Amino acid sequence: MSNEPAKWFFDRISPHLMQLHAIDGVVYSGRTKYQSIEIMRTSAFGKCLVLDNKIQSSDLDEFVYHEALVQPALIAHPHPERVFIAGGGEGATLREVLRHKSVTRAVMIDIDPDVIAICKQYLPEYSQGAFDDARTELKHVDARQYLADSRQRFDAIIIDLTEPIEEGPAYLLYTQEFYQLVNERLAPGGLMSVQAGCASLSELLNFSAVYQTLRSVFPVVKPYQVDVPSFGGPWGFCLAAREDAKLSPVEIDERIAARRLNLKYYDGLTHQGMFSLSRPLRQELERQTRLITDTQPLYIYGQS
Amino acid sequence: MSNEPAKWFFDRISPHLMQLHAIDGVVYSGRTKYQSIEIMRTSAFGKCLVLDNKIQSSDLDEFVYHEALVQPALIAHPHPERVFIAGGGEGATLREVLRHKSVTRAVMIDIDPDVIAICKQYLPEYSQGAFDDARTELKHVDARQYLADSRQRFDAIIIDLTEPIEEGPAYLLYTQEFYQLVNERLAPGGLMSVQAGCASLSELLNFSAVYQTLRSVFPVVKPYQVDVPSFGGPWGFCLAAREDAKLSPVEIDERIAARRLNLKYYDGLTHQGMFSLSRPLRQELERQTRLITDTQPLYIYGQS
Amino acid sequence: MSNEPAKWFFDRISPHLMQLHAIDGVVYSGRTKYQSIEIMRTSAFGKCLVLDNKIQSSDLDEFVYHEALVQPALIAHPHPERVFIAGGGEGATLREVLRHKSVTRAVMIDIDPDVIAICKQYLPEYSQGAFDDARTELKHVDARQYLADSRQRFDAIIIDLTEPIEEGPAYLLYTQEFYQLVNERLAPGGLMSVQAGCASLSELLNFSAVYQTLRSVFPVVKPYQVDVPSFGGPWGFCLAAREDAKLSPVEIDERIAARRLNLKYYDGLTHQGMFSLSRPLRQELERQTRLITDTQPLYIYGQS
Amino acid sequence: MSNEPAKWFFDRISPHLMQLHAIDGVVYSGRTKYQSIEIMRTSAFGKCLVLDNKIQSSDLDEFVYHEALVQPALIAHPHPERVFIAGGGEGATLREVLRHKSVTRAVMIDIDPDVIAICKQYLPEYSQGAFDDARTELKHVDARQYLADSRQRFDAIIIDLTEPIEEGPAYLLYTQEFYQLVNERLAPGGLMSVQAGCASLSELLNFSAVYQTLRSVFPVVKPYQVDVPSFGGPWGFCLAAREDAKLSPVEIDERIAARRLNLKYYDGLTHQGMFSLSRPLRQELERQTRLITDTQPLYIYGQS
Repeated sequence: MSNEPAKWFFDRISPHLMQLHAIDGVVYSGRTKYQSIEIMRTSAFGKCLVLDNKIQSSDLDEFVYHEALVQPALIAHPHPERVFIAGGGEGATLREVLRHKSVTRAVMIDIDPDVIAICKQYLPEYSQGAFDDARTELKHVDARQYLADSRQRFDAIIIDLTEPIEEGPAYLLYTQEFYQLVNERLAPGGLMSVQAGCASLSELLNFSAVYQTLRSVFPVVKPYQVDVPSFGGPWGFCLAAREDAKLSPVEIDERIAARRLNLKYYDGLTHQGMFSLSRPLRQELERQTRLITDTQPLYIYGQS
Repeated sequence: MSNEPAKWFFDRISPHLMQLHAIDGVVYSGRTKYQSIEIMRTSAFGKCLVLDNKIQSSDLDEFVYHEALVQPALIAHPHPERVFIAGGGEGATLREVLRHKSVTRAVMIDIDPDVIAICKQYLPEYSQGAFDDARTELKHVDARQYLADSRQRFDAIIIDLTEPIEEGPAYLLYTQEFYQLVNERLAPGGLMSVQAGCASLSELLNFSAVYQTLRSVFPVVKPYQVDVPSFGGPWGFCLAAREDAKLSPVEIDERIAARRLNLKYYDGLTHQGMFSLSRPLRQELERQTRLITDTQPLYIYGQS
Repeated sequence: MSNEPAKWFFDRISPHLMQLHAIDGVVYSGRTKYQSIEIMRTSAFGKCLVLDNKIQSSDLDEFVYHEALVQPALIAHPHPERVFIAGGGEGATLREVLRHKSVTRAVMIDIDPDVIAICKQYLPEYSQGAFDDARTELKHVDARQYLADSRQRFDAIIIDLTEPIEEGPAYLLYTQEFYQLVNERLAPGGLMSVQAGCASLSELLNFSAVYQTLRSVFPVVKPYQVDVPSFGGPWGFCLAAREDAKLSPVEIDERIAARRLNLKYYDGLTHQGMFSLSRPLRQELERQTRLITDTQPLYIYGQS
Repeated sequence: MSNEPAKWFFDRISPHLMQLHAIDGVVYSGRTKYQSIEIMRTSAFGKCLVLDNKIQSSDLDEFVYHEALVQPALIAHPHPERVFIAGGGEGATLREVLRHKSVTRAVMIDIDPDVIAICKQYLPEYSQGAFDDARTELKHVDARQYLADSRQRFDAIIIDLTEPIEEGPAYLLYTQEFYQLVNERLAPGGLMSVQAGCASLSELLNFSAVYQTLRSVFPVVKPYQVDVPSFGGPWGFCLAAREDAKLSPVEIDERIAARRLNLKYYDGLTHQGMFSLSRPLRQELERQTRLITDTQPLYIYGQS
């Protein structure tokens, strides 16, 4: 007699590698105008948001991902006031931004209102009321078009998009042209951060191409990574800016304390671990020559 | 028409999580006196050594694991001469030890001669002739019994065992009593390092229990982790000693250069990333109270 | 880009064989006092009732299973009036019994009221109102105890139980002692039919043991099989009686027509195919010597 | 601790259904000019021949498949002398043909000599010396071209091809044009039999289209099915001829006895079961209107 679970979610990491999650239940399953969406309960990670069959967030480690995406940029800025978020449907990126009392305006542009509505209903603990915060300005348009049409400048621009899959909604927000636009929309001293996909030695194409594409646009680009178990491996990010912030671990801890941020994941020593990439990872990122452009987009393995 | 691979290896990370590897071929499959053994070719990681259905090493990332296990201890020691290895069947741990020209004697005790013979035949690039090095002393006895019977002292003791599964060959080499014996066999200034299992936030029991058990024996215990993709997540290690070595990244790079080690993974910045654990990981390791003893051994999820 | 489904139900046919069904959705998931229960939508078979991780019925082929279980016995009887059903939670077995206008009383004993309530709510097209038929008498007690306490005689007794898994609710209703009780409760000319598990050449233990156990009790036992795709292979049944009915295909078709039964699966030629077992299957059934008794029950591979 | 097997073969029956076989070992793995080929040992079925990731034969049930393919045609013929086999790489179809001492010439045309060489080496018990029989004439050319170029007439033509997958070697041997050619090459009283794919109610497209296509060519076409567990369900075949043989089960048993065939699967009662299709299967075969032609070939789900 076996106690094996009977329902499994197949997360295809590459054509040759899958992570299988035992499913406890399916809370919601549907399709929006842009993508398939599910809220699934897994045995290992609790509730998960799944878009186009890729896990976006899980109860167990969403704080890791969202703090890692937002806090390095916002802590590096001495006084972030205006913040732009591209994507971020769950509202957890917005939640992390709004922790900073200096923030007076958080513009979140997510093209898919259904994802937000479903997350508000089924994952309210992810946004923790962030959508109702008076500082929040939420619009459901194309983030690139919004930035192109706008003359605003931001202290931080956070790119929290689904991965660039073919025919998916996000692939044109991973290109050199888009990053140039982001650069133009940063206020002096502003920073940009972006999730950049799998950071495993076995699957570095997306991370390294995003890194090199950013390098073709920004004077300072710092790649970093954290382990997000529900994603099946370490996850890559990049912090980009016009000048280098250079904070020591102690200074990071001081800023977090001064701003009373109540973080669970990020602190000075964590920062040091995130940004101290291993030798082969550094080498692979530098060796990469692929630039992502509108005419040469990059698609990761996946399905829309 | 699908291009999906048809043969898959199910690596059961926990009862609720599996990593599936597409299999290109099975080079060797058998059973020794102690464990099942296979050399498998996977599409994502190349050849893999699989003992009791757990991947021990892969072409793609064995250098990560073996350098991470060996080099922090040997670099921290100013002049390692005598080194003891418990386990280490592939010979890659031995290879890393023998890189150090200061080493005059490397005692490797692995209970299972068949694993070594099979690895020499099918994975010779892992040991790179290490078994034939004049400094090597290889014995197929129980490593704990060997240390108990011996009066020798070692500058470094490297524990490279399969995980502690029930009825497996290794679970009594993960206990407080064994670590006390290791401590007694260290020469002044000696260090011990040990692989301590999965370091993912979702599966920390083994890592944290090994850490706490070592803390009950050694004055200085430093946990660290690296990403080993073929293992399905970050992997934990501990470095234990009587006093703290405290080398800066620059000093580490200088020692590596001075010893002409020709490493692929480990260097000063890599070391800094390995030892800068994230906040929740540090908290979990400290929160743990479980000690592993001969009468209260710890078994990880797996099968013998 | 792959179009592979992402959620799969693992139906463990044996320790070495699984059938995986792509899951479209989970309509209901819970646990009753006796078993786990799910209503799942699969891509290949539509809605499925799953008890203790075994598919019991699917939209695509439940008519095959339920007609095959009920109609051979009821057609073989010249005028069935009183019918007893052990199990049969979905109500589809009851539906098949009530097709016969000669039936004046259908006693259905299923120990698990929750299964029936959930099936009535989510699978009403299976029972088609059968639970509300005035001829139906439904009780939630142990079927064996009910028969033991009763003095009634039945023209047909239909055994429609989940498979005999350890600690499952049904294993004591597959024994010689239970079949003796069934025999005592049959009216003159009465027949019994029972689902007897997998009829594949690779997994015949349950079918053959049920057959031989019935043979130790009844003068006439006729094994038969039908293909039920959602079960992952051919499925075995036995028809047992005190004397042989011996109807030709033409006579079967005539009875079906005379009774205006409106069947989808069963007819004279279908009957001939069901009862004409292949040579190796006949040999295996005869070769078997295992008898199932209260003290030597048989468990199939599965999980409760 | 789990006893679950770790290596699994994924047999994709449809996009929504898979049969997973635990793999004990891989005896041979390679690629011929036409297809991928493996000899795999599975726990449930023993050694299996796998072409283009589809199981063709297994130790456990190859006798079922091969007797079912060959014996109905050869028994129906009063005195088969010249037999043509298209495909049949394992040599087991040839073995079944050569059981008939009346056969003076067995022409086997299989385009892929590597499959035959590998089967002779690793599966000699399938052919049992048939390739060395003096009556055998083996050629590695295209079977359709061979028949087109030949003026010979055969008492039986047996079509034993892999399924018609896109870019696979066989899809043009499943068309109306090919069947017309077969018809022209049959001697008076000759019969043709063909394996026609999955016969499960959930996957009938290939079987029904082959049946209808044959009906457009032959006056008499009899569909039949047997359960082949290693194929994951019942398997369909068609017997086609210019006039109907009409043998009773008793006459079949008499011919088998008279010819001293020593069969394991086929006999009179087995024949009756094979040819007595269930009502919904008969209806689906008749309802089908798809004809397979050179310009409108049919591909089944699979991969080359």
